[in-house]
Amino acid sequence: MTGLLWTQEDMALIRGHVDQPGRLGQSLGELTDQVDEALTAGVVVPGQGDPGSYEHNTHKHNAKLIEHAALLGRVKDNPAYLDLARDLLLKYARQYRSMPYQVAKNTNPPGKLFHQILNEHIWLVGASLGYSLLGEHLHQDERERIESGLFQPMLDMFTVTYAHDFDRIHNHGLWAVAAVGLCGLAIGQTKPVDQAIFGQDGSGETGGFLAQIDRLFSPDGYYVEGPYYHRFAVHPLCLFAEALALHRPELGIHERSEQRIGRSIRALLATAYPDGTFPALNDASRTMDIDDEGVRVALAVHIGRYGAVPELVDMAVQQGGTWVHRCGAVLAEAVQAAPATCPVPSALLADGSGGQAHLKQGEGARRHHLVVSAGQHGMGHGHFDLLGLSFFSGGRERLTEYGFCRWVNVEPKFGGRYLAENEGYAKQSVAHNLVVVDQSSQHRGDHYLADECHGRIEQFVDRSDIDGLTAVCGSTDDAYPGVALRRHGILLTLDPSAPPLLIDIVEARSGDNHCYDYVFNPAGQIIRWWGGYTPRETLDVLGDGHGYQHLWVVGEQQSTGGGACEHAMTWLDGDRFTTWHQYSEHPATAMQLLVGANDPEHNLRHEKKVMSRVHADSTLFVNVFEQHGFFDEASERCQQARPDIRHIEVKRLSEERIEVTLIFAWGEERLIVDPRAASGDGYITFKGGDK
Amino acid sequence: MTGLLWTQEDMALIRGHVDQPGRLGQSLGELTDQVDEALTAGVVVPGQGDPGSYEHNTHKHNAKLIEHAALLGRVKDNPAYLDLARDLLLKYARQYRSMPYQVAKNTNPPGKLFHQILNEHIWLVGASLGYSLLGEHLHQDERERIESGLFQPMLDMFTVTYAHDFDRIHNHGLWAVAAVGLCGLAIGQTKPVDQAIFGQDGSGETGGFLAQIDRLFSPDGYYVEGPYYHRFAVHPLCLFAEALALHRPELGIHERSEQRIGRSIRALLATAYPDGTFPALNDASRTMDIDDEGVRVALAVHIGRYGAVPELVDMAVQQGGTWVHRCGAVLAEAVQAAPATCPVPSALLADGSGGQAHLKQGEGARRHHLVVSAGQHGMGHGHFDLLGLSFFSGGRERLTEYGFCRWVNVEPKFGGRYLAENEGYAKQSVAHNLVVVDQSSQHRGDHYLADECHGRIEQFVDRSDIDGLTAVCGSTDDAYPGVALRRHGILLTLDPSAPPLLIDIVEARSGDNHCYDYVFNPAGQIIRWWGGYTPRETLDVLGDGHGYQHLWVVGEQQSTGGGACEHAMTWLDGDRFTTWHQYSEHPATAMQLLVGANDPEHNLRHEKKVMSRVHADSTLFVNVFEQHGFFDEASERCQQARPDIRHIEVKRLSEERIEVTLIFAWGEERLIVDPRAASGDGYITFKGGDK
Repeated sequence: MTGLLWTQEDMALIRGHVDQPGRLGQSLGELTDQVDEALTAGVVVPGQGDPGSYEHNTHKHNAKLIEHAALLGRVKDNPAYLDLARDLLLKYARQYRSMPYQVAKNTNPPGKLFHQILNEHIWLVGASLGYSLLGEHLHQDERERIESGLFQPMLDMFTVTYAHDFDRIHNHGLWAVAAVGLCGLAIGQTKPVDQAIFGQDGSGETGGFLAQIDRLFSPDGYYVEGPYYHRFAVHPLCLFAEALALHRPELGIHERSEQRIGRSIRALLATAYPDGTFPALNDASRTMDIDDEGVRVALAVHIGRYGAVPELVDMAVQQGGTWVHRCGAVLAEAVQAAPATCPVPSALLADGSGGQAHLKQGEGARRHHLVVSAGQHGMGHGHFDLLGLSFFSGGRERLTEYGFCRWVNVEPKFGGRYLAENEGYAKQSVAHNLVVVDQSSQHRGDHYLADECHGRIEQFVDRSDIDGLTAVCGSTDDAYPGVALRRHGILLTLDPSAPPLLIDIVEARSGDNHCYDYVFNPAGQIIRWWGGYTPRETLDVLGDGHGYQHLWVVGEQQSTGGGACEHAMTWLDGDRFTTWHQYSEHPATAMQLLVGANDPEHNLRHEKKVMSRVHADSTLFVNVFEQHGFFDEASERCQQARPDIRHIEVKRLSEERIEVTLIFAWGEERLIVDPRAASGDGYITFKGGDK
Repeated sequence: MTGLLWTQEDMALIRGHVDQPGRLGQSLGELTDQVDEALTAGVVVPGQGDPGSYEHNTHKHNAKLIEHAALLGRVKDNPAYLDLARDLLLKYARQYRSMPYQVAKNTNPPGKLFHQILNEHIWLVGASLGYSLLGEHLHQDERERIESGLFQPMLDMFTVTYAHDFDRIHNHGLWAVAAVGLCGLAIGQTKPVDQAIFGQDGSGETGGFLAQIDRLFSPDGYYVEGPYYHRFAVHPLCLFAEALALHRPELGIHERSEQRIGRSIRALLATAYPDGTFPALNDASRTMDIDDEGVRVALAVHIGRYGAVPELVDMAVQQGGTWVHRCGAVLAEAVQAAPATCPVPSALLADGSGGQAHLKQGEGARRHHLVVSAGQHGMGHGHFDLLGLSFFSGGRERLTEYGFCRWVNVEPKFGGRYLAENEGYAKQSVAHNLVVVDQSSQHRGDHYLADECHGRIEQFVDRSDIDGLTAVCGSTDDAYPGVALRRHGILLTLDPSAPPLLIDIVEARSGDNHCYDYVFNPAGQIIRWWGGYTPRETLDVLGDGHGYQHLWVVGEQQSTGGGACEHAMTWLDGDRFTTWHQYSEHPATAMQLLVGANDPEHNLRHEKKVMSRVHADSTLFVNVFEQHGFFDEASERCQQARPDIRHIEVKRLSEERIEVTLIFAWGEERLIVDPRAASGDGYITFKGGDK
C-alpha cells in the first residue's frame, strides 16, 4: 500500500500515463504544473484571514498541494515533491495548536484556518491523503510533530468540540466523517475510524458514514439539496468509500444499500445538461459543471467500480481531465474507446415521495433536456420551486434558472457568502419558471413548512422513439392552501430535423378567487411581442415581497376581450429564436419584467422575465415554446425568424382531460392529455392531426 | 485562363489542397459540403420577397452557389457541379427581364431580386465569377440566353438606369464598378470594363475603380465609415483588382497610389481586436470579425501580393478558412510556418486630417488594444463619437461600443434594416465612451456638419518596450461651439505580469458654464461602488433627446464636499475585475444607468452605463481603469477582487501640463502629461515615483 487510496499496482498503472495523451495524462500534466509552480514559490503558510481573502485561498490551496505534491512524488519518484508536502505539513503542525478559533460568520461553527468548520474538514481530507503517501519519507519525529501538532487537535475539534455536529445527516456531515475517517486511517488510529463509519453511538444508524449512505440519498440516489450540493457531497462519499474498500473491505461499501453509492453517482450525472453544467436547482451557481473535482472523482469511481455506462463515458469525453487514481485510468481507457455520440436516456429520480423528472431527446451537444421538479424541498438550500421547470436545448438554457444569489469567494461580495437577495429573490417562487399564486411564495416561503411537504409525479412517459413524445405530469395540493396545481411538461418532436416543441400546461384549481402569475425566464433579446405591446416609460416595482419587490415592470400586453386569450412573444438567444405561445382560459395581462429593483449592493443580475397574470378561481395556461430559425450575427445569416404556430385551441373534455390543438401554418396537431390515464400510452394521445 | 481570377496553374495549385489539412483544404471542404447539399436540393429560384425573407436569402445564396459550384467543378473536374452553376444561371436568365422592380425600402434605389441595388451588384459579382469558369461547358445558345436574359439587363440597369449612382465614391460605388467590370470581362465586352475602370467620363478621376482606389481610402488606407464597412468595401476592391492584374496587367493596379490596396488591407486589419472582431466604430455589429468573407479574401491578397507580414499571418492563423485562390494557397503555406505568437504593433491611421489611434500592448489572445478616434465623421454611417474610446483586454471588450441598432437580416426587426433607435440612441454621443456636453450630441447630431469637421491627433507615442507606455492625445474645438475638448488615452504597464492601467484624461475648456457628462460602458456585473451608493426604487428616464431618452437612472453616488472629488466602482466581466477610479476637478454626481427606455419595439439591448456629471466652465476628469484579480465561477476560484489604487491626486502645473499621482497600497506613481511637448519623449514623463 502506497497511501490511503493507491496500491503499488495502482501507482505503476498511473505512472504509465505520465506524459501521455488522454484524460489521466492530461490531469497528471496539470498537477505537475501546479506543483512545480509551488516548488518555485516555496512553502507559504499565512495566518488567518476573512472568507475569500488571500489567507483563506492560500490555506485551501495548500491542502490540495499537500495531496498533489505527495501523490506526484510517488508517481514520479521525486523526493522534491515529497519534501514540499512534508514541509507544508510541518509548518501547519508548528502553528495549528496555538492558532485561535476564527469568529463564526454564518450558522456553521468556526474552524481555525477557516471561518467555517466545513472548510477545515475539506482541508483535513487533502492533508490526510497527502500524509498517507509520505510513509517512510518521514522521520519518526516528523511524524509525531505532524500528528500531535496538527491531526490530533483537528480530530479533537471535529469529534469532541463539535461532537454535536458530527452525526448530522447532511453534506457537511459527510465531509466531517470522511475527514475524520481518512485521517484516522492515515495515522493508524482505530477509534476515529470507527466513529466515522458507525457514528458516535456505534450503531451505524444515527450517524457516521453508513448512515449517511443510507439516509442522505433516496433509494434512487437523489440528493434533496439539488445537483450543486450533490456534486459537493459525492466527493467525500467517493473518497472515503475508496479508502474503506481498500482498508475495511469487509464492509462491502460499494455494494451497500443496493449500490447506493453507484446510484447516487448516476442520479447526479443524470441531471447534467448537455453542455455539462448542472441545472441550478435550489441554491446553485449556473456554471457548476461535470468538470468539478468531485464529479471527476465520482465519474471515475463509477466507471472503475460500477461499469462504463455509455452516457457516462460520453460525459467523461466532455471532461478536461480525471482523478489521478486507478479508477481514472479505467476511465481514460473507456474515453479512448468511446463512440462519437450516444443516446442519453430520460430519468425520473424518485425521492421517496415525489421526484424530479429529466426528459431528454436527441443526441450530441445540441440535444434537449427538460427538468420538472415535483419532489421534496431542499432544506436550508431549498428554493420554493415546486413544479418548477427549466429547459436546455441547442447548447443553451432556454428557460433559465436564476440560481443562487451569491458570488462565491468574491470577498467584496459579503465574503463570498450567501447574500440577502438570496432569500429576498433567488429562493422565492417568482424567481422560477412556474405559476405563483397570490404573489406569494409556496409554503409562505417557510422552509420548515416546505420540508414537510412534497410534490407528486402522476405520469412519466418516454415514447420519443415511437411518436416523438416525452412527458411528465406533476402536482401539488399543499404549496398553497386551497389550491391544487398540476403541470404537464411535454417534449414533442414533430420534425426530427427541428427541435421538439415544449408544451407546458399548468392547471390551477380552487374554490376561491386567486391571482395566478405564470412566469418564465427567457435569456437574450426580445424580437417581438405579437399583437401589441405597451412599454412603460418609468419603471415601477411590481410588488412588495416574496421576490416581487426586486422586479420592475418594463411593459405589458393586455388581453383583448373578456374570455380566453392568447399571447405570443419571440426572443433570440444565441443562434436560435424561441416563440412563447400562450393560451389562457381567462383574460390575462402579460408583462415584460426586469430583475434588479431594490438592490442597493448590486447583488442581482439584470435579467428578463415574462409574467402572465390571471384572476380566477380555477384556470388553465397552455404554453408552447417553439424554437425556430437560425441567426448568426457575425456572418449576418438569418432564417425563419417567425414562428410556425398560429394559434392554440383548448377544450376541456372532462374535469381533468384536456384537448389541445396546435394550429400551424401548414396544418394542425391535436393532443388529448389525460393525467388520470392508467398507462403512459393513454396519458397523451394524438387525434386526427396531420402528424 | 480558366476563369476571371484563376489561371490553369492556379487551379492545379488549388487542386493539391483538396482533402488536405490547412486553411485552403478546410475551405475547399466547406465549399464541397455547401455545393453537395445544393446538388441534393436541386435548382431553387424563388420569386421576389421582402428584405430578410426566404426569397431574399435564397437569391443571395444562389449567387454564391453559382460561383462556388463552378469553381469546385473546375477544381474537382466534376461536370455535375458545372451543371448546377449553369442551370442556376439559365433559370435566372429565363425570368430576370420580365421581373418587375422591387419597391425601394430605404434610400438606395431598388433592384429586381433585391430591394436595394447594392445586393444586386453583389449578386452579379458572384454570378460573373461563376460564369467565367463555365467556359466551353456552355453551348453557344446557353451563353446567349444567359448574357442577353440576365447579364445585359443587369449591366443596363447599373450603368444606364442608375447611371447617376454609378460614379459615386462610396462602398456601394465600389461594388457597382466591380460588378460591372467583372461582368464585362466575363462576357468579353470592353465598354462596361472601361466604364468600370475609368468612370463614365473616362478620366479615371471622377468615378470608376481607379478613382475609388485613390479617393475612397486615405493615403494610410483608412476608410472613413469604419472597419465594419471597410471590410465590406475591401471585398470588391480585392476581387476586381485580381481580375485586372490578370486581364489588364498594364494598369499595375496593385501598385497604384503607392500600393493603396495593400495599405487599405493593412489599415483594416490593424483595427481588429485580439479576438479577431472589429471594434464597432460608427454603424457596425459587435461580432463582425476577420473570418468575414471579404477579410478572408483581403488577407489572402495581402499575403499573396504584398507579403506575409507576421501580424497578418497571425490573424490568418485565427481564421477558419481562406479564399479559394492562388493567394489563399500562399496564405495556407504561411500559416503552416507561423510562430505561436508575435508582437502586434500599435498603429495611427491618419485620415488626412485627424486619425484613429490603435494602441496595443502584449502578445497573444489576452493582449490589450485601446482605440481612440480623433478623425473624420463617417458620413451617413458616422456616429457622433469624436474623441471616443474603446478598450479590449484579456479576451473581452472592457469599455464597450454599443455598435449599430440593427438586427441584420432578422426579418421581423424592420426587415433587418437600420432601426429608428439607431438614430435615436446608437449614433448619439452618449452611447459612446466620451464626454457629452450639455446633454447634446456633438455637431448637434447633424451629419452634414460633422462631415465638415474632424479631430486632431496631437501626440502619439509607443514606448511600451522602454518604459511600458503607449499613449495618444486627441482634441477637437468644433464638436461643441465654444468648448475645446482634449483627451489623453494612456496604456501604462507597471508590472509586466499584470494588464496595463488605462489612464484616461479628459479636459474640457470653455468660457461659459456647461454640463459635462463623462460616460462609459462597462459590461458584466457591478461588484461595488466604493464610498456609498443610493439606488432608485423607480427608474426614471434621464433626459429627453440625443439618446438620453433611452437611458434609465438606476442609482447614484453623490460627491462629498464642494471641490474636487473621487469616485470608484468595481465590476466583474468574465474572469477579471476592473475598477474605475475617477478624479474630477469639480463636484461630480456619478450615476449608474441602464439602456432601454422608450423602446416600444425592444430594439435596444439592456446594457449598463456609468455617467459622471459636472457643471463647470472648464474641467478635468482623470480616470484610471485598473484591471485586477481573477474569478472563475465554475471552479469557485477568486483572487484580488479589490483594486490596488487608493487615490488619484492631480495638479495643474500650467495651463496645459498636468501632474497625475496614482497612490497605490504599495507606493505611488507620478506622471507629467504635456500635450504641447515637442517630442514623444517629453509628452509623458515620470517623476520621483516608485516605478
